[in-house]
Amino acid sequence: MASHSACGIYTCFSIVLMPLLITPLCDGGKVLVFPVDGSHWINMKIMIEELHARGHSIKVIRPSTSWYIKEESPLYDSITIPENIALQNFLQIFLDDYIKAQREGVSSFTFLKLTWQFLSMLSVAHSMNCDMLAQIFHDESLIQSLLDAQYDLVLTDPAISTGIVLAKYLNIPTVLNVRWISSGDGLFAIAPSPLSYVPVPGSGLTDNMSFMERLKNMFFYSLVVFQERFMVGPCYKAICHKHIQGGCDTISLLQEADIWLFRSDFVFDFPRPTMPNVVYIGGFQCKPAQPLLPDLEDFVESAGEHGVIIMTLGTYVKALPNDIAEEIASVFAKMPQKVIWRHIGQRPSTLGNNTLIVDWMPQKDLLGHPQIKVFVAHGGTNGVQEAIYHGVPVLGIPLFFDQFDNLLRLQERGAGKIINLADVNSHSFDQGLKEVLHQDSYRHNMQRLSRLHRDQPIAPLDHAIFWMEYVMRHKGAAHLRTEAYRMPWYIYYSIDVLVTLLVAVTFFVLSTFIMFRFLCCRGRTSKVKQH
Amino acid sequence: MASHSACGIYTCFSIVLMPLLITPLCDGGKVLVFPVDGSHWINMKIMIEELHARGHSIKVIRPSTSWYIKEESPLYDSITIPENIALQNFLQIFLDDYIKAQREGVSSFTFLKLTWQFLSMLSVAHSMNCDMLAQIFHDESLIQSLLDAQYDLVLTDPAISTGIVLAKYLNIPTVLNVRWISSGDGLFAIAPSPLSYVPVPGSGLTDNMSFMERLKNMFFYSLVVFQERFMVGPCYKAICHKHIQGGCDTISLLQEADIWLFRSDFVFDFPRPTMPNVVYIGGFQCKPAQPLLPDLEDFVESAGEHGVIIMTLGTYVKALPNDIAEEIASVFAKMPQKVIWRHIGQRPSTLGNNTLIVDWMPQKDLLGHPQIKVFVAHGGTNGVQEAIYHGVPVLGIPLFFDQFDNLLRLQERGAGKIINLADVNSHSFDQGLKEVLHQDSYRHNMQRLSRLHRDQPIAPLDHAIFWMEYVMRHKGAAHLRTEAYRMPWYIYYSIDVLVTLLVAVTFFVLSTFIMFRFLCCRGRTSKVKQH
Repeated sequence: MASHSACGIYTCFSIVLMPLLITPLCDGGKVLVFPVDGSHWINMKIMIEELHARGHSIKVIRPSTSWYIKEESPLYDSITIPENIALQNFLQIFLDDYIKAQREGVSSFTFLKLTWQFLSMLSVAHSMNCDMLAQIFHDESLIQSLLDAQYDLVLTDPAISTGIVLAKYLNIPTVLNVRWISSGDGLFAIAPSPLSYVPVPGSGLTDNMSFMERLKNMFFYSLVVFQERFMVGPCYKAICHKHIQGGCDTISLLQEADIWLFRSDFVFDFPRPTMPNVVYIGGFQCKPAQPLLPDLEDFVESAGEHGVIIMTLGTYVKALPNDIAEEIASVFAKMPQKVIWRHIGQRPSTLGNNTLIVDWMPQKDLLGHPQIKVFVAHGGTNGVQEAIYHGVPVLGIPLFFDQFDNLLRLQERGAGKIINLADVNSHSFDQGLKEVLHQDSYRHNMQRLSRLHRDQPIAPLDHAIFWMEYVMRHKGAAHLRTEAYRMPWYIYYSIDVLVTLLVAVTFFVLSTFIMFRFLCCRGRTSKVKQH
Repeated sequence: MASHSACGIYTCFSIVLMPLLITPLCDGGKVLVFPVDGSHWINMKIMIEELHARGHSIKVIRPSTSWYIKEESPLYDSITIPENIALQNFLQIFLDDYIKAQREGVSSFTFLKLTWQFLSMLSVAHSMNCDMLAQIFHDESLIQSLLDAQYDLVLTDPAISTGIVLAKYLNIPTVLNVRWISSGDGLFAIAPSPLSYVPVPGSGLTDNMSFMERLKNMFFYSLVVFQERFMVGPCYKAICHKHIQGGCDTISLLQEADIWLFRSDFVFDFPRPTMPNVVYIGGFQCKPAQPLLPDLEDFVESAGEHGVIIMTLGTYVKALPNDIAEEIASVFAKMPQKVIWRHIGQRPSTLGNNTLIVDWMPQKDLLGHPQIKVFVAHGGTNGVQEAIYHGVPVLGIPLFFDQFDNLLRLQERGAGKIINLADVNSHSFDQGLKEVLHQDSYRHNMQRLSRLHRDQPIAPLDHAIFWMEYVMRHKGAAHLRTEAYRMPWYIYYSIDVLVTLLVAVTFFVLSTFIMFRFLCCRGRTSKVKQH
């Protein structure tokens, strides 16, 4: 276990094992953080807390309309960039529409419409972030202050590319805190990803695909490339062209990053090729459960041997469509279990006495409580990782983004079950819930995942901090990063070499053929002459 | 730091960080070891020592003619398989010839001859090991005792495939302790390895190649495939066919292994794609230096400010050709430094008073002594890793196997210099030695590598042990391993999908073309009719 806090002379940047030649950097580093709002911020904040606890000073760049990232905090100083429209409102409208469309059932036409809506939403969101980036570059005194501050590290979530462009301009070593990026799974940009067994994010596929599924995977890959080339990349590229010598594009900026802290691991994800500078920190936010508040504890304990079901569909969903809420409430009402349901909106008329509706719940602490039998969840990365950590099986109702893919990974391992939003009714929900509750295999498989996840040589958060401090100590980690991304594609794929070999072989075969033909003809001609 | 020794209840298989759900396996595991002789055994023995210290019981399978692996040891029990010819003698003849041929200078003809000799040697060596494997399968009581013993783990070095075939037969989780395997670098068999930036072992190339170098890399790759298909693989395949249901081949057996403990890291090696079940443990054998024996310490200290040069060309070279030894000795004699030279064979007539000739030297402890200025070495993996650990620059004279490639990695980073055997004379050796001694960049670069190498979140040996115990705890690590290797090549490379898409597009284009032509012709025909 990396015990960074108890190692004498190397207090802040200690290596317990092999300290002989390490230059300690004990004054604390200066970290510039460019986060992404929403659930992404929840993760980033945990890293900031840990960096702060280890004596680093942190500056956070946030938009004025941010809904999670506070301007003032004991953990960090902030720089606020004025923004006119809140991404939140804009996203909320899209998400409500998206849920409605899904509820109507996904025909081919709806699927195409949803995909196009999603791409358009992404494009607008990135365009808003490009405006923010342009504002930063426009503010000369801000840029000068960022240059003068001489940060040791940029820590950024590349779901929005603003941070990596700024890091390039400031020429500061960069660490990515990454799950998905604009152009799909970050690993497609960095490590070879054979489409035969690496499912594209959003495709809803596993690593074991039929022929038709591999066709679908290829289609999704084309979509990812299209999205990056035509809907996300161009606005950043224009800013790069204007402000950064030699220009840049978002994909190569990602590939230039020193370390990728990937919020996943291979207990959760399917095995696939990776690179030496990708560090897997899935579940880094998980901690042993804290005791519940007395009221909640009483409610949980009152369930007795039947235990408790908890349900939340995440922070993005303000209100479930009424019909679904009614159906779900009626199923809960008939269960012998107690239920804690994070539900915002109209109180369902079918609600039973056993169901406690809350605005917010201490999800991590509840998941760690031995009384919790099933977690009904939307499949956000954080919730799924916490369910794995605590070994609680999941009944999943995926809504958008990576949620279906996340839940699929649990379902594939027999540790969870998916019901699509279009299929949710009292019958399907009742069946699904009882299946996950009563079939022991769900709990056993989830507990197996939990054992595997917890069995690591170093805690994921310690691992994350180690690599951030490593990058500060050594001013980057270029030796862990391949420079192959700088190659043109025909060199990367050895096309030039293969074509040369093909030409050489063809030339050899042809010239041999011509020579033989010539010799043969000459033979015949002389025979003819002899005759 | 994984402090396995001080963690209460999970004494032997402890995880300090997240012990909640881990099933302890405290009786100690049963490990069956199938090692490779020579310098490979030095590495394996360190792992065995550590496993033994942690309470595991170990059984080693060795040939009767082994020159390093003792039959009796306090660390392990052994099973001895009778062998008629010692691989050692056979290898020695080849190596002596190989050195002689190199000394004569490497013309294209010599190069081809050497390559062929090398391949033939490999083929014979593997054929001897196949005989040993056949003997094991022939001995029914031995096989039964191996089955009865119910080992928890097979630990094997796949430079010789005997261990992986046996592990498959016994159906035991397998960990590979691997540097190079018969078919070249193990990673070519497991992770995607684009030939544009991943140099094939033995090619003498870096990750930054010109067009001609990439052609050369392709040639070496073909050689590796040829070697595996026609010279190494067949004899094991025949045994697989006879004894293992469904048959097997050495490459897929490697791909089936649970964990690869790779004796390298990316401070030493060029960055490249890797897989989740590959653990990098380069330099795991390195330890802080122990004090020298008084006589040797006196000799080292007597060098004063000039310091000491140490030289060894490894265990395989019994005697350097006399002319080279004379040239080297004459250069050493003129240096103000003291020299410690591990030299077997005739004492050079040009030897100076400053040079101490020894049969054996405490290489690790000397490299860690502050008086040592340069390490003259052949470039074996162990020596190079120890030089990196202690930050001592290297003057390399590569002889065979991976030695040139190893030294090239140091040279590329400005931490070492290579002189080929053919070029060694008093002038070149004198120049090379003085360059590495007096150009500060060599020492600075090597010390930078040392700092990077030592800066790891967990010591490589602890990492290795963690993963071996992990495999025992969880009865394998299948979730970290892709099953993609089971796909036929045309599926793996998505050829079937691409051909289908190509046919579909062609059909679409052609039918559109025909339709337009038809419409167009009809138009014309009606016009003609109207006229």
